Amino acid sequence: MNYSFSNKVTGLQASAIREILKFTAFPDVISFAAGNPAPEAFPVKAVSEITAKILSENPIAALQYSITEGYTPLRDTVKKRLASQHSYDPDIDEVIITSGGQQGNELSCKVFLNEGDTLICESPSFIGSINSFKSYNVNLVGVEMDGEGIDPEKLEAALKANPNTKIIYLIPNFQNPTGKCMSYERRKTVYKLAQKYDVVILEDNPYGEIRFEGEHIPSIKSLDTDGRVIYCGSFSKVLAPGIRVGFVSAPKAVVQKIVVCKQVADVHTNILAQMIADEFMNNYDFEAHLEKIREIYRKKCGLMLSEIDKNFSKKITVTRPQGGLFIWATLPDGCDMTGFCKKAVEAKVAVVPGNAFTVHETDPINSFRLNFSTPTDEQLVKGCEILGKMSREMFD
Amino acid sequence: MNYSFSNKVTGLQASAIREILKFTAFPDVISFAAGNPAPEAFPVKAVSEITAKILSENPIAALQYSITEGYTPLRDTVKKRLASQHSYDPDIDEVIITSGGQQGNELSCKVFLNEGDTLICESPSFIGSINSFKSYNVNLVGVEMDGEGIDPEKLEAALKANPNTKIIYLIPNFQNPTGKCMSYERRKTVYKLAQKYDVVILEDNPYGEIRFEGEHIPSIKSLDTDGRVIYCGSFSKVLAPGIRVGFVSAPKAVVQKIVVCKQVADVHTNILAQMIADEFMNNYDFEAHLEKIREIYRKKCGLMLSEIDKNFSKKITVTRPQGGLFIWATLPDGCDMTGFCKKAVEAKVAVVPGNAFTVHETDPINSFRLNFSTPTDEQLVKGCEILGKMSREMFD
Repeated sequence: MNYSFSNKVTGLQASAIREILKFTAFPDVISFAAGNPAPEAFPVKAVSEITAKILSENPIAALQYSITEGYTPLRDTVKKRLASQHSYDPDIDEVIITSGGQQGNELSCKVFLNEGDTLICESPSFIGSINSFKSYNVNLVGVEMDGEGIDPEKLEAALKANPNTKIIYLIPNFQNPTGKCMSYERRKTVYKLAQKYDVVILEDNPYGEIRFEGEHIPSIKSLDTDGRVIYCGSFSKVLAPGIRVGFVSAPKAVVQKIVVCKQVADVHTNILAQMIADEFMNNYDFEAHLEKIREIYRKKCGLMLSEIDKNFSKKITVTRPQGGLFIWATLPDGCDMTGFCKKAVEAKVAVVPGNAFTVHETDPINSFRLNFSTPTDEQLVKGCEILGKMSREMFD
Repeated sequence: MNYSFSNKVTGLQASAIREILKFTAFPDVISFAAGNPAPEAFPVKAVSEITAKILSENPIAALQYSITEGYTPLRDTVKKRLASQHSYDPDIDEVIITSGGQQGNELSCKVFLNEGDTLICESPSFIGSINSFKSYNVNLVGVEMDGEGIDPEKLEAALKANPNTKIIYLIPNFQNPTGKCMSYERRKTVYKLAQKYDVVILEDNPYGEIRFEGEHIPSIKSLDTDGRVIYCGSFSKVLAPGIRVGFVSAPKAVVQKIVVCKQVADVHTNILAQMIADEFMNNYDFEAHLEKIREIYRKKCGLMLSEIDKNFSKKITVTRPQGGLFIWATLPDGCDMTGFCKKAVEAKVAVVPGNAFTVHETDPINSFRLNFSTPTDEQLVKGCEILGKMSREMFD
């Protein structure tokens, strides 16, 4: 039969950048294109011990249907962590466990946005979230960033130009793909704009716990006096992504709507995974584990930056992230960025072209994303040498 | 702030039946209201062994990000099972692993339906699916069933009356809530109607593997000559629901769209759970396990039916299912079904009022659902005695 798909999915097309990304699966290609945590950051031994304990002591609870809101002890653990580390103390019914951070963003979108409503996000932004918003036929408006985060004047102009804006989506900490961190002042400014135009802020914070340099900056959620911030967190970077556990914290009225949407989406999140996360955070040294992860990424990021400094043409500028997994490199004005990325993969190094992260794939952009968490140290050095040689030949 | 939720979720309201269901959590209430598999049906020892093995031999694969389509060996295992047991041999790229069967239904809906499009389903039908379809603002049309399944004349009338019908949603085996099984002839008739009106059939089969009486009936999918059937399966009833693993089999073009929607929904299904399911199906005696489960449900269903026969007023009619988890009881015409259910819970037995399963909660219905998989044998006997006494006092 000839399928008549919904308007929602006809807009979600396989992208031209897939042509580049598919090479990353080739074993002889050094991939700086991934977004995976470093495997050595996974607490394998602890997860093994915990899992054996749960399946021995409490197997039925780990295998039976559970409640949509999430495993109650884990909701309480999340609540306590937000209170102790994130200057924000929600009630337990202001926390819902999700199947990864991505689900938190998707369900928040479903709860608030009708087709045609406007959602404003940083441009560039995380491709997964962008596609999630697109899958609800939302009017997506990207706003540029400067060194401190989303540009407040441009944000206000976008809010004025789009009076049907419902949500501002932001990744304040070590943003994907740029690695940028929004300053505290900027967070306050953006929150005030959200108040002025009466819109919701969707604060996505998958990388906040892996700050490996500089001072912690309180979340936008911690500034929230009138319940307009939905805060999404994830265990993907601090425990393991394969278990698909994240959470949303928001006012109770919002959480209740998210619960309804999650119930029809997947009933509840894998309960064994929730019990593992809870046990790990409470009965293992979570702080020591985080410090170990931060040390891994501090070293890897430092190595990549020093190799970039050593090898790249000085005409390429890069961000110097204080956390997260990504560095953002920008070519000189007028360069053919896609051409550069294609040439790179022909030289056996894969990076992600910047237009993977723009609201519209045709938006002009001359940057690309580099990941430092997945490659080995040897790959970091070798790949930067190759990209560096290419860049000097092209731009110097 | 005053939240302005999307049209999609404002229609999803907390239901009056929740008032009854909340009593089921009270420890002194015998609950026939659940839909949980029997805990003794969980292969706890096997899951423990398998999990220990995976986390010892292949921990990184079990914890790292994975592909949206699902764990490739499990997709292959599902393909082989469909071929050997369900008269239908898909290619591996015609199979996607989902986070439970529910997600298969929800994503299929998202892929095909615009707001206002019509979806026809059996009435009554599974509340989770009904709410899932409602969450996309779909025009839901319920069609009555007879003893052989959905009524073909009424189905054709509904198709004629709703030319924007995109999907017919069916649970052919041991339907939730009625326990009814669609005859082979009826499956063929319904498939022909789908061809005549060029609509997709969404075949939901969570209970098919737990037939404990009678002969296997081939799926509608096995009749599918032109790629119009989307088949959803689940490991919830044959392994464990807490792990949230299911699958969809559909033509490649449809699976590709479902993959895109799943990617933005939850990236992928918990990978450890997928590996557990695959290992269990391949390296343990899956057939013996299924036979054990079937025996548990055969006994429990038989016990409940014999207690009903012994105790209930003869004016109450019940279905006599050959599989699944549910019996459907119908009161005499003109009785106050909701009143009966309220009275039952006051007498410490919870059942689910039939209007939980109608397309519109106000649709007239004088039936209620009884679950036999979760209660103990003692509870089955005691609860039926209580309901029986009540029914004789009210109707005899």
